[in-house]
Amino acid sequence: MRLYTYWRSSTSYRVRIALNLKGLSAEQVPVHLVRDGGEQKQPAYTALNPQAGVPTLVEDDGRALTQSLAICEYLDEVHPHPPLLPTDAAGRARVRAFALAISCEIHPLTNLRVLKHLTGHLGLSEDAKLEWYRHWTVQGLTALEAMVAGHPDTGDCVHGSTPTLADLCLVPQMYNARRFNVDLEPYPTLVRIDAHCRGLDAFAAAAPEAQPDADT
Amino acid sequence: MRLYTYWRSSTSYRVRIALNLKGLSAEQVPVHLVRDGGEQKQPAYTALNPQAGVPTLVEDDGRALTQSLAICEYLDEVHPHPPLLPTDAAGRARVRAFALAISCEIHPLTNLRVLKHLTGHLGLSEDAKLEWYRHWTVQGLTALEAMVAGHPDTGDCVHGSTPTLADLCLVPQMYNARRFNVDLEPYPTLVRIDAHCRGLDAFAAAAPEAQPDADT
Repeated sequence: MRLYTYWRSSTSYRVRIALNLKGLSAEQVPVHLVRDGGEQKQPAYTALNPQAGVPTLVEDDGRALTQSLAICEYLDEVHPHPPLLPTDAAGRARVRAFALAISCEIHPLTNLRVLKHLTGHLGLSEDAKLEWYRHWTVQGLTALEAMVAGHPDTGDCVHGSTPTLADLCLVPQMYNARRFNVDLEPYPTLVRIDAHCRGLDAFAAAAPEAQPDADT
Repeated sequence: MRLYTYWRSSTSYRVRIALNLKGLSAEQVPVHLVRDGGEQKQPAYTALNPQAGVPTLVEDDGRALTQSLAICEYLDEVHPHPPLLPTDAAGRARVRAFALAISCEIHPLTNLRVLKHLTGHLGLSEDAKLEWYRHWTVQGLTALEAMVAGHPDTGDCVHGSTPTLADLCLVPQMYNARRFNVDLEPYPTLVRIDAHCRGLDAFAAAAPEAQPDADT
């Protein structure tokens, strides 16, 4: 397998964790999201992924898979152990809802292309951009904390004691929030789960700083 | 089951289609997203769904399920016939990627709370708001058209001849694009699939105008 990735991309980070948890290796192909106007917009790449984003996972037979959550669900179906989802439908719904609350409510509003659009096209100041970032992140993290705090299914991880799709999304989101200096004190359950997961080898090896294209 | 819903919400529309395709009935509880500052923000509702959005599906045992895609996957697991996903992992990945390309790339940037933030908090003009809407919608639909046009798995629907999670997301997105007068001519495959699906009873009965709270 080949994984087209960018070290600091939250969505790439999710898939790197999933691969590590499954004990799978994929050749990493860095796609620099800023250099040369964004390598993800070059025709050779958009032929593979018309959405012009990372990650893309290319299977050995040449099929290109896109959208990080779809890739993680695919990996979970093709390589079921260890599972990334609980076995019961209610638990699966809880985990997916948590993952989607990040993937549909926070990340799309705060990713690089949107922040660039705000300062570039709309002419917002750097401060107004940061306020936008924090507004949606705080709103999203507040909801996430309410979803896990005191919930009987919350454990060391979002759901029980082993990482699921929910944790794969949480850790990159928390990384991102720290990068933009969001105060995380109001989210003690999220902070605890994030710290626990980052202590696991699969998460540590997937961290942005541990990638071959780090700091580029 | 009870479905907390708003007639014009794309994400509610997705779940209504899923319920209809499965032949399931749920009591509809309208949540007006504008009236009284947004009924979804009232404590009685956020106790059920801390994300303060629609839809929420409440199961007969009282469990509240959130996030439209998680709800649809749950319904598909608990009521497997007819299936909302293909049987093969590659097909499932393709359908989920398409659904997520709408749910993570278009809808979060163009929904009501974001448009209100643009004109309210950021003070953008109505024209600038519409330009924002069209910018992300056109970018997203362009990628979606490239994902389906000429693809061997595309049929009457996004994947083959029966509706999947991909179509549940496409039809509400196209409804939304028409509402904001986005020119759909550049997306002939999407237009064809959308028209086909809207001709099916399950989709027609889920349409915004067919809901009890329509035009409120």
